[in-house]
Amino acid sequence: MTAPQHPRITIQKGRSSRLRKGHPWLFSNEVDMTPEAKALPRGALVSVIDAGGEALGIATFNPHSLIAARLLTADPAAQIDAGFIANRLRRAVALRDTLFAQPYYRLIHSEADGLPGLIVDRYGDVVSVQFNSAGMDRLRDSVLEALRTVLSPRAIVVRNDSPVRGLEGLETGHEVAEGVIDGPVEIIENGTRFLADVATGQKTGWFFDQRPNRAFIASLAKGRTALDVYSYAGGFGLTTLTQGAKSALLVDRSEEALTLAKQAAALNGFADRLETRCGDGFKVMETLQSEGRRFGVVVADPPAFVKTRKDLATGAKGYRKMARLAAALVENGGFLLCGSCSHHMPAEQFFEEVSHGIGQAGRSGRLLWSHGAGSDHPVHPQLPESAYLKALAFQLD
Amino acid sequence: MTAPQHPRITIQKGRSSRLRKGHPWLFSNEVDMTPEAKALPRGALVSVIDAGGEALGIATFNPHSLIAARLLTADPAAQIDAGFIANRLRRAVALRDTLFAQPYYRLIHSEADGLPGLIVDRYGDVVSVQFNSAGMDRLRDSVLEALRTVLSPRAIVVRNDSPVRGLEGLETGHEVAEGVIDGPVEIIENGTRFLADVATGQKTGWFFDQRPNRAFIASLAKGRTALDVYSYAGGFGLTTLTQGAKSALLVDRSEEALTLAKQAAALNGFADRLETRCGDGFKVMETLQSEGRRFGVVVADPPAFVKTRKDLATGAKGYRKMARLAAALVENGGFLLCGSCSHHMPAEQFFEEVSHGIGQAGRSGRLLWSHGAGSDHPVHPQLPESAYLKALAFQLD
Repeated sequence: MTAPQHPRITIQKGRSSRLRKGHPWLFSNEVDMTPEAKALPRGALVSVIDAGGEALGIATFNPHSLIAARLLTADPAAQIDAGFIANRLRRAVALRDTLFAQPYYRLIHSEADGLPGLIVDRYGDVVSVQFNSAGMDRLRDSVLEALRTVLSPRAIVVRNDSPVRGLEGLETGHEVAEGVIDGPVEIIENGTRFLADVATGQKTGWFFDQRPNRAFIASLAKGRTALDVYSYAGGFGLTTLTQGAKSALLVDRSEEALTLAKQAAALNGFADRLETRCGDGFKVMETLQSEGRRFGVVVADPPAFVKTRKDLATGAKGYRKMARLAAALVENGGFLLCGSCSHHMPAEQFFEEVSHGIGQAGRSGRLLWSHGAGSDHPVHPQLPESAYLKALAFQLD
Repeated sequence: MTAPQHPRITIQKGRSSRLRKGHPWLFSNEVDMTPEAKALPRGALVSVIDAGGEALGIATFNPHSLIAARLLTADPAAQIDAGFIANRLRRAVALRDTLFAQPYYRLIHSEADGLPGLIVDRYGDVVSVQFNSAGMDRLRDSVLEALRTVLSPRAIVVRNDSPVRGLEGLETGHEVAEGVIDGPVEIIENGTRFLADVATGQKTGWFFDQRPNRAFIASLAKGRTALDVYSYAGGFGLTTLTQGAKSALLVDRSEEALTLAKQAAALNGFADRLETRCGDGFKVMETLQSEGRRFGVVVADPPAFVKTRKDLATGAKGYRKMARLAAALVENGGFLLCGSCSHHMPAEQFFEEVSHGIGQAGRSGRLLWSHGAGSDHPVHPQLPESAYLKALAFQLD
């Protein structure tokens, strides 16, 4: 079988070296935007040709996006179909099988797993998918077929509610594409049972990215009290209980998330050590301070404060204030973890803001741990800027 | 008992805010360098006074160093003696007891543990000390007394061979200050027995800083072959054997280090899975490539290539070449860890050089792990630049 002929897009002269070094993107100003190229449907498969006529691979192409082309393969003769995607899935499964003992993880993390624009989270036999580029959206049927082939899931949820779809000119929404979701799905992480709302919860229902950071801070929690602000369904707080924390107080704005955490605590047999408070993180921290409460371990891992580059100054102040409020609740000799999932917040600045906040609270201490997302969220070697997660853990005097 | 009166040094007007925010240093151009101040002996204890006359704490002072004052405490009335140092040691021991099950770790990491210029590594009942500032050098007797009080070690080694002593106008040398060292000292790290040459080995005899990075890469090594270039006494390589690697080949220029590794492998009962090759890392990697060897896990963690800021360009090329040579030896689907302990090599640039080298070897892949030193090497919140260690682990296709 010969590979199908794709429309060709041509790289402007002198602009192909980044792609040759392994970068997976071409920007719109690097491509000859001919009338033919402009007329291609969003997300079409194209052959990428350099100015000298050499074929450099196959990409998805979106003439209306700043990231015009996303390379799928450097092999110009590759067949892009369910079989191609299944091979990428198998490679990703093999890596996760090495990393983890149980099938609860991010399976496909976009470019770094060779499938630009695709996110797949695996919740045992339930799979949650995000199509975040026009190119991947067009390959939807092949992706679903490949998932069935490789994983035989009992259900596939499509969570197309990420705002990045807007940049690609795609509609947002979510649906169960296969099987039935009849309630929260149970997962196991760091030896703890959790419940994830894969149908309507945040992101795909769970934040797998904080796994190593949860493990680290929980390893310090034995015999201490814990506070988990912005707890969502209890990722940090319940892990401290597994590791022997005396008690954990979870704070979140969502009653639904706190209910899942309480149900999960019961599954783990430590519901008696769990407290919850529904409310705004800043306000509850102020209240706890006025109540004179102190904790051996405090975690503050909020939703992104910096959603776009222009939010940076405001968001940075938010992180500083968060660290100040959280540090004031840490016992002498206790531990503080601050997280940021803001892509637009540089790691150095996050460290500075958090350190500043700790100082404003009149506390000194030392940084013990600085880490990003777990290894099931790998980073493409040419896209260091895609490393968005930051977690800093301090001991405070 | 009233605190002794120390000579006073005065901060120039408007220059005290950094100290008030918790920064532990004053630079020489921030201090009133009066004839009296200039005449103080290197490392003298001083009271730090701001331009308005307020006492901000007690520091050690070196009029001949760029870092003129290193704050020991913000309490102007504190008594700086063996009791003061013993309290800092106890705080550091309490933290390490939370972090680790066994007494093998960096106990004092300078400013971050409240004792600027002091390094203490704990090898069970043997302690190795570095006095890296004139101030800490003058407090040597109090430090040794405090170590005896808190740890009752059977031996104390003073390893004053760090080049930073030169910047402080101090002599270099090493000696056994207490007890007897009659051979290598055994430690346990990540469940593996090692032998450390505390009397004359590199640094204080062991690199405790790579502990979490050794644990990570070894967790991927089960059933694979491992190569550990710049192995020293086998920190990475033997850990992969503990985690079930089929074999490990250690490469180092030091026969003495390789002998320690072989002896340690025998203690662990896996000497039959260990190979060693004495030689230069680059040359041996080239030879292995010409022999067609490939490994499931490759580690390249060399001594600092960038020893001073002016070495940066040369050192950066060295890391790139190292990554290129190492990547070529990784099996498809295998793993590569590259380390840098060069303080002057920025983390972002290290990532770029290593990625570039991987690309030059014709390999693609994904970053799984980016981490610094272990938590027994904490970072002072106001000295982020003191985080010197970088370890990057990739899977390569």
